Amino acid sequence: MTLSLEEDTLRVGLFEPRIPQNTGNIGRTCLAFNLPLDLIYPLGYSIDNKYLRRAGLDYWKHIDLNLHDDFSSYKKFNKNSRIIGFSKTGGTTIDQMKFLPNDCLLFGREDTGLPTNIRNQCSHICTIPMPGIASNQNIDGVRSLNIAVACGIAIYSAYISNYPSNN
Amino acid sequence: MTLSLEEDTLRVGLFEPRIPQNTGNIGRTCLAFNLPLDLIYPLGYSIDNKYLRRAGLDYWKHIDLNLHDDFSSYKKFNKNSRIIGFSKTGGTTIDQMKFLPNDCLLFGREDTGLPTNIRNQCSHICTIPMPGIASNQNIDGVRSLNIAVACGIAIYSAYISNYPSNN
Repeated sequence: MTLSLEEDTLRVGLFEPRIPQNTGNIGRTCLAFNLPLDLIYPLGYSIDNKYLRRAGLDYWKHIDLNLHDDFSSYKKFNKNSRIIGFSKTGGTTIDQMKFLPNDCLLFGREDTGLPTNIRNQCSHICTIPMPGIASNQNIDGVRSLNIAVACGIAIYSAYISNYPSNN
Repeated sequence: MTLSLEEDTLRVGLFEPRIPQNTGNIGRTCLAFNLPLDLIYPLGYSIDNKYLRRAGLDYWKHIDLNLHDDFSSYKKFNKNSRIIGFSKTGGTTIDQMKFLPNDCLLFGREDTGLPTNIRNQCSHICTIPMPGIASNQNIDGVRSLNIAVACGIAIYSAYISNYPSNN
């Protein structure tokens, strides 16, 4: 863990995450893209959880992990960055979003997403299109992507829009 | 399950997948994007596996799932489409890839990826950039994204390159 703040990097934040395997997978994606991970308490598991570490594989310890007591601490810590909240509905479609190199990508709880009072404190709300869900409104339970998958899409999109490859 | 082949759709294929939770999560992403899923035997689990269905949530039964005895059956089934194999290294970087509306996105086993003889039968090899891994060569175990995360990035990229949103 580090308490230093690199201001010129994308960051990933999880608001009150519930499921350790998801956080582990997201940590693995952060490490693949060399991005810090902010976790906002309360968590739904212990930070020493074995499933968290297993999903993060043996490199969980290398993640630049920052723990925050609550949203206001997180916001203060990232005061020079925009906070881009992700939501299933109502935001700018992600391929239309203009990301900045130091944006904070924020994801809500797996079960309830970002509550309204947190959404209202975000700089922008961003939505990943789910055309299959729009066309299957009558299928019970079809609601969303897994959070680690959604987070991977967001990280990739923000990264590549800032640093397109040239090969 | 359906045996009909919609020729004008992206498809997702898993070559000999090992971990049911990953397949479940990938099925969930397929459903969110309204894409069929091809599984190529042998699988590392029973198709009735409880973890598969749990990760796919209660809508696993709605997935357009196609089972293939081996790679050659899969290739024959998709004979009018390109097969885009995903690999950690050596392919066209995904943001430089020009996807077609009926491409088959193919992912290898979680432990060993796509073997050489399968790679050689793909139309193209595509790679998702992992800049953090390139800069952390000395960290033991930092090797790859979770396959469901990589697959989510691939699906999103191929989808949005064919059907960019307009809002």
